Amino acid sequence: MPGPLSGIKVLDFTWALAGPYGVMILADMGAEVWKIETAGQNETRRGQGPYVHGVSTYFFSVNRGKKSIMLDLKAPEAKEVIYSLVRDVDVLTENFSPGTMAKLGFDYETLRQINPALVYASTSGFGHSGPYRSRGAVDAIVQGMGGVMSMTGHDGGPPARAGYSIGDMAGGMYTAIGVLSALVERSKSGLGQHVDVAMLDCQVALMENAIVRYTSTGEVPGPVGLRHPLATPHQALPAKDGWVVLANVKDHNWAMFCALIGCDELVTDERFATNAGRTKNYPELEPILFNAFRQKTQAEWQEQLSDFCLIGPLNTVDKVVADPQVNARGMLVDLPTWTGASLKVSGTPVKLSRTPGGPQGGAPRPGQHTAEILGRAGLDADGVAALIAKGVAADAPQ
Amino acid sequence: MPGPLSGIKVLDFTWALAGPYGVMILADMGAEVWKIETAGQNETRRGQGPYVHGVSTYFFSVNRGKKSIMLDLKAPEAKEVIYSLVRDVDVLTENFSPGTMAKLGFDYETLRQINPALVYASTSGFGHSGPYRSRGAVDAIVQGMGGVMSMTGHDGGPPARAGYSIGDMAGGMYTAIGVLSALVERSKSGLGQHVDVAMLDCQVALMENAIVRYTSTGEVPGPVGLRHPLATPHQALPAKDGWVVLANVKDHNWAMFCALIGCDELVTDERFATNAGRTKNYPELEPILFNAFRQKTQAEWQEQLSDFCLIGPLNTVDKVVADPQVNARGMLVDLPTWTGASLKVSGTPVKLSRTPGGPQGGAPRPGQHTAEILGRAGLDADGVAALIAKGVAADAPQ
Repeated sequence: MPGPLSGIKVLDFTWALAGPYGVMILADMGAEVWKIETAGQNETRRGQGPYVHGVSTYFFSVNRGKKSIMLDLKAPEAKEVIYSLVRDVDVLTENFSPGTMAKLGFDYETLRQINPALVYASTSGFGHSGPYRSRGAVDAIVQGMGGVMSMTGHDGGPPARAGYSIGDMAGGMYTAIGVLSALVERSKSGLGQHVDVAMLDCQVALMENAIVRYTSTGEVPGPVGLRHPLATPHQALPAKDGWVVLANVKDHNWAMFCALIGCDELVTDERFATNAGRTKNYPELEPILFNAFRQKTQAEWQEQLSDFCLIGPLNTVDKVVADPQVNARGMLVDLPTWTGASLKVSGTPVKLSRTPGGPQGGAPRPGQHTAEILGRAGLDADGVAALIAKGVAADAPQ
Repeated sequence: MPGPLSGIKVLDFTWALAGPYGVMILADMGAEVWKIETAGQNETRRGQGPYVHGVSTYFFSVNRGKKSIMLDLKAPEAKEVIYSLVRDVDVLTENFSPGTMAKLGFDYETLRQINPALVYASTSGFGHSGPYRSRGAVDAIVQGMGGVMSMTGHDGGPPARAGYSIGDMAGGMYTAIGVLSALVERSKSGLGQHVDVAMLDCQVALMENAIVRYTSTGEVPGPVGLRHPLATPHQALPAKDGWVVLANVKDHNWAMFCALIGCDELVTDERFATNAGRTKNYPELEPILFNAFRQKTQAEWQEQLSDFCLIGPLNTVDKVVADPQVNARGMLVDLPTWTGASLKVSGTPVKLSRTPGGPQGGAPRPGQHTAEILGRAGLDADGVAALIAKGVAADAPQ
């Protein structure tokens, strides 16, 4: 379905995860994305497994709905192609190390001369300024340096990574926010600008609560474990067949809650009568709660407790995919691969009433749209054939 | 500094974290935000500590740069005020349980009649459709149901929450993306629309890699611990004074790496010569690496290894705040409280070259801008005084 960015064209130099995830958001919203890959070598993540139907599932998921052109970016003829395309697009995205685009002749200062309305987005580990600007980063590095790993895991144990690559994906989300903000501004001024998003900065933005707390009180938070530091019970608890998460057990519901979990003796225990007391005396409460919750299944607890608190299962991914709400919201989408089979990917969480968007198609073969995009750069069929013959461009293998 | 959304006005009904975090992004980008709070009772998070300088730091951080009006939304006169303001704004944001805005007379179908160009954003736990639409959620519930908790923590141990409230904040980020996408579209069509963002959907969008892997191969990932499942070493390692995270140790650098960590005997050990071998034989490698890394400090490892791999410290929040790059990027901003003292909060990670934006000021007192915003609704001084006398509106205490 057409999305809100229908008509917006993106020239996309991104690779790996942070950049492609952000550009995927723009593609889901209906932008036409021309993903540039280097002729003669695959985008790194095309090489990352698991492979299914001859396709890297890693690559397929975040590059759905994009078009692919293969170019040797160091060839002089490729530079002319890029300059032509830059005249025609609204947005350029890249996540090379700072300095790489300048070496290729594609830095913002050069390209704004060609197209002053261009919104040019750079995503990198540490940004295009500051003492670390030339250092590389990956997800684990910024999860470590940004602080989230120090707050993830259990007291006394080793730190842990957040279970998905939020270091990369937060960089992608904030890149999309930067591009979209610049497009809103451009609709009034007619001018583009440079968007410089650092993965580390995005982690700092997500650490906002820990930062204001530390800078105002000196408190350095440790790992959050599986429970809320100020509310009890507000945590994961072990059921017979897995874990459940519950929250918002109000003091006025505590007696009913105790009865429902088969712990009548807790009702009159003054240590646990208030949230403050339950939190203070949690070490004594935990074994009682754990033992009580192990007596019934996730579904039984859901049924019995949902009128008195917030509750849900702690799902593994198979349970997420089977969840009725996830399916009702269209959050799982079948997309065709170029071998004919289809793969199931996550949908867009941005549900718009009039221009809904969503994944626009499968991920492209390398070079699947080389001829089409070279045509947008003004080349005719002979010109396309000449560039391919020279090795400047490459087509998808037939 | 003026941001790209300068001139965009937001009528903001959000509270707690998910909604306010998304609206904070719009405010940082320069939008004028009129935050509505209920007369006679504070926004929930104004009550959440720690309090410093008479201010809830939790509230202050995510509500910086917004204006505050206090209204009794159930009073008929308040409804007229809201309808007047709706004519004047570009965006409306709310994160009540689905159905609450309709009960107040402020649902999208009603308000679009008043202002067809209105972009109306709803953020909720499960969204405005599907079988769970009337259920509430908080961060821990969607971290559990969405799957990230099942992938966070260590093999054989209990699950863990990601260390910050990514369930809420991802909802906020995707709400900002939805609003901005709708504004881009509106610049062409002149029409608004409803943006419906569910926190659970956002978790599914962040689980994209696990989802495509599971649905195509049947593989259900367990907790990621502190290392990459396919690359070794790509993980946190204990140094003398804390942990370091490293990644991208290439096979051709392995011998040099072994020498630098004082493990010459590993160079010729064929079990560890390749990444595949190191990953397969990780249980035997881990104690050797842990022991080697404990001999030197984070800074020493940074100095010695940074030419041969990616490396950074695993920072607690005090170290994040002291980091030279974080400071050079303007990611810590002092903002005034209404008591005169200032608080330090995280800055914006969206760095724009021409219209930079950033936090626009401290968080407001409750009702600090009641008279000003009622003026925007067409009331003169007598009209404002009459609403305050009736208890329909409230001013900040003097």
